Amino acid sequence: MKTVNTIDALRALVSQWLRQGERIAFVPTMGNLHAGHLQLVGVARQHGTRVLTSIFVNPLQFAPGTDFENYPRTLAQDSEQLQAVGVDAVFAPSVDEMYGQQRVQSATTVTVAGLSDILCGEFRPGHFAGVATVVAKLFILVQAQVAVFGEKDYQQLTIIRRMVQDLCFPIEIVGVPTVREPEGLALSSRNQYLTPEDRERAAVLYQTLQRVKQQVVDRRESFSMIEAQAMQVLQQAGFRPEYVSIRQSEDLQPGRTESTHLRVLAAAWLGQARLIDNLEIW
Amino acid sequence: MKTVNTIDALRALVSQWLRQGERIAFVPTMGNLHAGHLQLVGVARQHGTRVLTSIFVNPLQFAPGTDFENYPRTLAQDSEQLQAVGVDAVFAPSVDEMYGQQRVQSATTVTVAGLSDILCGEFRPGHFAGVATVVAKLFILVQAQVAVFGEKDYQQLTIIRRMVQDLCFPIEIVGVPTVREPEGLALSSRNQYLTPEDRERAAVLYQTLQRVKQQVVDRRESFSMIEAQAMQVLQQAGFRPEYVSIRQSEDLQPGRTESTHLRVLAAAWLGQARLIDNLEIW
Repeated sequence: MKTVNTIDALRALVSQWLRQGERIAFVPTMGNLHAGHLQLVGVARQHGTRVLTSIFVNPLQFAPGTDFENYPRTLAQDSEQLQAVGVDAVFAPSVDEMYGQQRVQSATTVTVAGLSDILCGEFRPGHFAGVATVVAKLFILVQAQVAVFGEKDYQQLTIIRRMVQDLCFPIEIVGVPTVREPEGLALSSRNQYLTPEDRERAAVLYQTLQRVKQQVVDRRESFSMIEAQAMQVLQQAGFRPEYVSIRQSEDLQPGRTESTHLRVLAAAWLGQARLIDNLEIW
Repeated sequence: MKTVNTIDALRALVSQWLRQGERIAFVPTMGNLHAGHLQLVGVARQHGTRVLTSIFVNPLQFAPGTDFENYPRTLAQDSEQLQAVGVDAVFAPSVDEMYGQQRVQSATTVTVAGLSDILCGEFRPGHFAGVATVVAKLFILVQAQVAVFGEKDYQQLTIIRRMVQDLCFPIEIVGVPTVREPEGLALSSRNQYLTPEDRERAAVLYQTLQRVKQQVVDRRESFSMIEAQAMQVLQQAGFRPEYVSIRQSEDLQPGRTESTHLRVLAAAWLGQARLIDNLEIW
């Protein structure tokens, strides 16, 4: 497995692969890899002849005073794991390499209107512009034919699909179902911010989504009533919920009983950890 | 010369060229071509083995109520001119083809902070986001190694250079000096909005920039005094000037006597035409 740290070295590698007719499958990550990421790599393997993973904790998508500085950085272990599952190359640039010495901020920003200021975007202003900007830049650099993202970050996945469509990126976006702990907690690097006690309690988030799904299927109450009850359940279980929301899967607009594809999405703090999860309803 | 009207046909052509090892030089235009555009094509010819020109009047860069509807569309004559100067292909999509049936607006927007809300951006809010968005999309589609832009739209050129740098587009941006009428008026499609009388008077804009340059070189007055005098000269000549501003060439920040590269930029209405021009000072 090759590791490249500079944009020039990445470009040289990508050019070589494309000249050789390789099909590049790309898995962008912020590192601190767990079984969910490795699942993405496995899916990427099925879609390309070369798998490239990026590891970059992107400052543009963290608000000041949040966990950018403390986000776990574990490059050595990450590299071992990626090598073990047959990744061909890792792109692990520094912040200076990606955004220049000033590192203040990229002047250029990619925003996806409508999808970016709702749900998580309401609670993390600027977050999805940071995501869209770095992903656009990585897509331009990596020139992959396929990129693989987890469904756990469902709003992110939806925004990236829309950006790809709007800007005509020649790339196929593949979403991969969320990998969970046996009791249901979605795998996330931020789970390690949980105390052992909270870690047990955290499964209530997924159980609540399952309950919402069942209630929607049963059609006995309004969506807003179901959402409000779910918020209450989370609160009583010790969470500080931000939202529980039933949405249309394609465009994340408020769900209606006649919507063809529905999904419930939620975000809730538990201790120091902000957890997100989502579940397909139909 | 090939003409392609769809994204699919463009992609097929570009793929074929890239497989054949061609070097694509790209000249994006809004059509209604004049000698300035043909100059861009000539420069593109020197930089690539294939020259592709786009003709697209981009609604995103026109504010409501401005001249989007009336902007001159002369595709047949444009195609003849391009064929005569040896362009290999023209991409002339419809608005629906570029932005979809809803055509309202692309959800995805590319903005370049700092450079987009000054000078022309102050008087045309959203204009440069529309420019950056369509140019990013065209760069992704055309996959050119070189793109050629006129220096007449100097702020646009600066914004595109910055976007290319920030997002790592693998493309070289070439700026081409402004082509002028014998008496100095910069060529522009919007010159045809001028009455014959105003057309004669329009040369005062360039003469004013030359006078500003001389005054800066002579170093007898402050920049703000020189700018104010130029505004007055334009007003007295029947213009409605928006700005005359001495700026640093690289980043368009306010010029200082110790700046290494200086340029004067101006925008002024004359009758129904909004004219812009700029001139290197040193």
